[in-house]
Amino acid sequence: MDQEKIYLDYNATTPLEPDVLGAISTALSEAWGNPSSSHAAGVKAKTVIDRARTNLATMVGAKSSDILFTSGGTEANNMILQTALKHFHLCHEITNGTDPSRGDNSDQLPHFITSNMEHDSVKLVLENLAEEGIASVTFVPASQKTGCVMKEDVIAAVRPSTCMISIMLANNETGVIQPIKEIFESIRHINLTRKNLPRILLHTDAAQAIGKMEVDVVEMDVDYLSIVGHKFYGPRIGAVFVRNLGSKEVPLYPMLYGGGQERNFRPGTENTGMIAGLGKAAELVVQYLDNYSKHMATVRDYLETRLQDVFGDRIHINGKFATSERLPNTCNVSILGHGLFGHMVLSHCDRLQASVGAACHAQNRPSHILLAIGIPESVARNALRLSVGRETTLADIDIVIEDLKQAVEFIENDSHVTEAITC
Amino acid sequence: MDQEKIYLDYNATTPLEPDVLGAISTALSEAWGNPSSSHAAGVKAKTVIDRARTNLATMVGAKSSDILFTSGGTEANNMILQTALKHFHLCHEITNGTDPSRGDNSDQLPHFITSNMEHDSVKLVLENLAEEGIASVTFVPASQKTGCVMKEDVIAAVRPSTCMISIMLANNETGVIQPIKEIFESIRHINLTRKNLPRILLHTDAAQAIGKMEVDVVEMDVDYLSIVGHKFYGPRIGAVFVRNLGSKEVPLYPMLYGGGQERNFRPGTENTGMIAGLGKAAELVVQYLDNYSKHMATVRDYLETRLQDVFGDRIHINGKFATSERLPNTCNVSILGHGLFGHMVLSHCDRLQASVGAACHAQNRPSHILLAIGIPESVARNALRLSVGRETTLADIDIVIEDLKQAVEFIENDSHVTEAITC
Repeated sequence: MDQEKIYLDYNATTPLEPDVLGAISTALSEAWGNPSSSHAAGVKAKTVIDRARTNLATMVGAKSSDILFTSGGTEANNMILQTALKHFHLCHEITNGTDPSRGDNSDQLPHFITSNMEHDSVKLVLENLAEEGIASVTFVPASQKTGCVMKEDVIAAVRPSTCMISIMLANNETGVIQPIKEIFESIRHINLTRKNLPRILLHTDAAQAIGKMEVDVVEMDVDYLSIVGHKFYGPRIGAVFVRNLGSKEVPLYPMLYGGGQERNFRPGTENTGMIAGLGKAAELVVQYLDNYSKHMATVRDYLETRLQDVFGDRIHINGKFATSERLPNTCNVSILGHGLFGHMVLSHCDRLQASVGAACHAQNRPSHILLAIGIPESVARNALRLSVGRETTLADIDIVIEDLKQAVEFIENDSHVTEAITC
Repeated sequence: MDQEKIYLDYNATTPLEPDVLGAISTALSEAWGNPSSSHAAGVKAKTVIDRARTNLATMVGAKSSDILFTSGGTEANNMILQTALKHFHLCHEITNGTDPSRGDNSDQLPHFITSNMEHDSVKLVLENLAEEGIASVTFVPASQKTGCVMKEDVIAAVRPSTCMISIMLANNETGVIQPIKEIFESIRHINLTRKNLPRILLHTDAAQAIGKMEVDVVEMDVDYLSIVGHKFYGPRIGAVFVRNLGSKEVPLYPMLYGGGQERNFRPGTENTGMIAGLGKAAELVVQYLDNYSKHMATVRDYLETRLQDVFGDRIHINGKFATSERLPNTCNVSILGHGLFGHMVLSHCDRLQASVGAACHAQNRPSHILLAIGIPESVARNALRLSVGRETTLADIDIVIEDLKQAVEFIENDSHVTEAITC
């Protein structure tokens, strides 16, 4: 019989909490009416959605009217970046009567600042805009001393044409928490001095942060924040926070046109069941975040201690810097040694389910994020991203350690055999 | 105690079939892994998605590789229309080295043909493109003799710059089935003669048709078809069929950029639970469509007979034409008489839950769709859209008839009283 697997890939996705499953199931069975219908079946669905919206708002310290549901984080990020682009054009049309960016002067293209370690749903959108000659983009490199994007580097990248800064709140591979509050505070000062230029809009993708650390839109003073349900034991939909949604100061332009749902910002009949689940997942975070993060930190720290006990100097924790905070659940680790490529080690594990980086990336190339923070290629090739969850136990970690030990021994013996034959 | 409500608003949305709820629940509990993960948890999720894709393909007579999941019908329609726009520009850039539509010559704008009774997720997209000067659009009026868009009118609207024709398969308010096969066949002939022009791409929004009538992409010879789960007892996601998805002949351009899911056409971590539910809903349609449609036709016909029995000449069935087919479940009816506005009648019903038109529209204006097919405004104002479902019984209809009778009597008595006081 197969032994039970130990899942340490909670940064890729999480299971749904039983309460979340319950909320989804109840909403699907009982609140299936069209929320736009004026009869009782519709009103019931609308009530479920309103409650979920309030829960999400509470979770991030926002007003309920500033939360908009989307199909997921990818749509949320795309929508926010496209909004900045459109806003830039509209502002320039209003100011100059023309839209300079559609002419030949590439200095006048809308300019985005981001980091060199964003998720593909930010990175590829911006790369694509740059390739098509629609925008210019500065990918500010993370510091190799902190694993963070540094405030000074962001400030230095600002241009008159800068329309948006988009930096993730916590990195999905290293868990390093970025100094969003500090960076955005500086930009707000710069915004005050840009009298004849549109404000630089401020976005953070909080996909990996929510459910693992306190996330507060007021404290960080962000304009936009992306929320992704399936990273915090919720369903596969998302949401965006937009400060004073509907105001002129922080615009939002729909990507879709249709039946007017979500105040016309995001039409399409609402996915009531999933929205109910997202609301419940948010409610749990509000209630138990402290427990969750303490538990995950204990288990993650135990994992790192045990790795060092067993593998000694051969352990390299990637993204652990004295002056930076990490998410409490993430351990990005390389076991140094010939042939111990991350994907190779994982393929020889019987019980551990983990990854070498983002799930949506090829598994046999060194992570660009690790290279970005200065991890040498030979070390990055061996990286394992181990991310623990709410239910991971110390006993699970002991099993994982044994599993890794046998995998490493097997690969090394195998490689000795191979080498002997080759000789 | 409240009496049980009778829901006759199945064109707005449907409840989920118990089997669909089961499939969703199982997938959410057991296949929650990230489908992009290479470990067992990921592979399991991927298998669930593959199976659902096959079920959807079978339902519409397509290849599995031609089915793409979306967040819903609104996204599906938007994506297909935006694709035609982008394709037009790319074709012109290739042919001429320039993109004429971005110049001043508005004759050279990409041209869409659609009907004047589309859902907002087609109508508003095209209206918006026209308003922004990005495209020109012909809204072909439906014939007032058939409730259909006529082939000749579509052909007459074709221009050298026509890039796409988008016409719904069955109307959501009247249920009138449009002659898609016939129209698209003619256009395919025209396409053969357009040697130096890009093909006109052919789209049908099958949102209201699926689950109520046979829908076959090969028989209709469409390039694109939109599928909406919650109209056929499935969840609130959708899909598109694209003929030979990935080929050059029938292009598809992503609206979003991200982690490469859905072959990069629609990135974002897959909503496995909802996809599993959509697959199950499709499987049920494949298995039971004949039963469903026969049952619905029996119940709807009984409803219309009873309405005529009770209200006699005061009944006007909107959209019932001798030469046109209707969906088997839809009865759009006006009860003629002073003050018997649709929304007023519904608000005086104790048990009937129905609508006066699309759920996402204001309830107190006459439907533009009814006006489009020649229903006089005074009749259109009184319209009720009654749409029956798989479980609606003849006994339910009897209750609805009694409910309508008392509502009409109440309004008429009340209006006599009001008139008496006014006099």
